[in-house]
Parts: sequence; C-alpha cells; structure tokens
Amino acid sequence: MMHSSLRKQRLAAFIQAVWDEGLVDAAADYIAEVYTIYHDPGDPWHGQMLDRAGFKDRVRQSRAAFPDQRFAIQGLFADGDSVVMTWLWRGTHAADLPGFTATGQTIHMSGATVYMFDADDRLTGHWQITDRLGVYQQLRRGRQEASPAS
Amino acid sequence: MMHSSLRKQRLAAFIQAVWDEGLVDAAADYIAEVYTIYHDPGDPWHGQMLDRAGFKDRVRQSRAAFPDQRFAIQGLFADGDSVVMTWLWRGTHAADLPGFTATGQTIHMSGATVYMFDADDRLTGHWQITDRLGVYQQLRRGRQEASPAS
Repeated sequence: MMHSSLRKQRLAAFIQAVWDEGLVDAAADYIAEVYTIYHDPGDPWHGQMLDRAGFKDRVRQSRAAFPDQRFAIQGLFADGDSVVMTWLWRGTHAADLPGFTATGQTIHMSGATVYMFDADDRLTGHWQITDRLGVYQQLRRGRQEASPAS
Repeated sequence: MMHSSLRKQRLAAFIQAVWDEGLVDAAADYIAEVYTIYHDPGDPWHGQMLDRAGFKDRVRQSRAAFPDQRFAIQGLFADGDSVVMTWLWRGTHAADLPGFTATGQTIHMSGATVYMFDADDRLTGHWQITDRLGVYQQLRRGRQEASPAS
C-alpha cells in the first residue's frame, strides 16, 4: 500500500513538472533509460521505444501547440507494476497544427493512461487512449469560425 | 487480494456474457439497480443514470450495428472500489449507423474503462475513453470504398 501511494505521488509530480510545466529535463528523475509507448493510437510515437533524449523531444513537440496545457487527474489506480491515471486536459491552441492554424481557442480533452514502473519506481512506458475525435471536432469548429466563408 | 481477483473474474464474465454474446438478461447478475455512466464522450448515454431496463436497452442498441463484436481484454487493474480494464475490440459492421450504411467490413477499436463496484461486488457505473477517431476513420474509408464515385 505504501508503495502504491508512493508511485501515485511520483506519477502526479511527473505529470505536473514535465507535461504541465514543460520542465523536460526533469523527465530524467522519473523515467527509465528506455520508455516504451506500447499503445497510443494517433500519437506519432505509437509503438516506439524512446531513450531519454527521444522522450524529451516527444514532450517538446507535443507541448508546442498547447504551451499552457494542464492535466486534471481524475483517478489513480495502482495494481501490480502499473498505475492507471484517468484525466481531463485543457490547453490554448497557441501554435499551428497540421491542417489547423492556431486559433487561440481553449481545447478540452480526456483520456486514460496505464503507466508501467520498474523496481526502482521509474516509468518504463505507457498504454493510452485519448478522445481524439473530441479534439478533432473542436479544432474543426475553430477553423470554421475563423474562416466562415470557406 | 482475493477480493480484487474475484472482481476481475466477475468483470471478465460480464463482458463476455453481456457485451460479447449479447445475453442482455444476464446483466441483472452483474449490475446494481442503478448504473451511472460518469464519463464516456461520444456515447449517447454519457452522463446518464440507468436502471436495469435502461442498461439492457443501451446494450441492445450499442450491439445492433456490430452483432458479432468481441472484446479482447488487455489488462485488469484493481484498486479501491474500481477495476480498470484496457481492451481491444473488433466487430463486423453489419447494420447501418447514422451516416454510414453497413459495409460488412471489420472495424477495430481500443479503449480503457474504469468500472466501479459496490460492497456486493455489483457494477455501479463506469468512466470510459474509446478511440472514436480511429473508428470514424475506418467507417469513412469503408464508405469511400463502397461509393468510389461520391
């Protein structure tokens, strides 16, 4: 139980430092030498094994369009080597995405992520589902409002 | 631990009987009098509280377009009152959906669902994310292949 609680605290601290605040160098405190993205449909890194430099690149690229992004953790569930996190997310669409120029609108998303840990309580990878269709619909609406004639 | 194991077994049996095999009356063996869909973006029942008749209607309507659907459970994670299930899914698109006439193609999906239990080990609700964009892309591709001129 203490161990589960520690891992939940570490995961929440990782999300806040690395993903919310963009402190990419802090990732080395939390992730193992190899981080595997087992399942993450729609994510450009789906199926890849990343070293720490690769992981930092992923964070930088993923955060670029939504630099003020924030996760709101809804639940943490620890079992075996894993902690599952359910979450809401929001970010201002501040830089261009493929097919969608920046609109400044707030985008909302939700998802569920299984994070795997090693014996040293370091993150070794994840299995994730995000509501991509919800994001796509918001981006498309934003594009229509920005260019009503098209 | 025994308790967690029992709940995982019950959840897997529920998925197989009710969702895979479509034995809707078996739902009464697994769910509480009220079943709450706390979060399920894109699901027509998102946010609703269902009695058992309502739950059975949801299963019947959800299964109608994909009567041979099957879940492949990827992981089960028990913590507190919940068991999280990660899953792959496939089904033959055998009946019409809004905007998508039946094509007979196999559709694949993945998702993650937090199931909540009461003290009698009955399901009281869920919090779910599914990869809806992946399904939408497959359906759209199927429609284009069925009507290449449009």
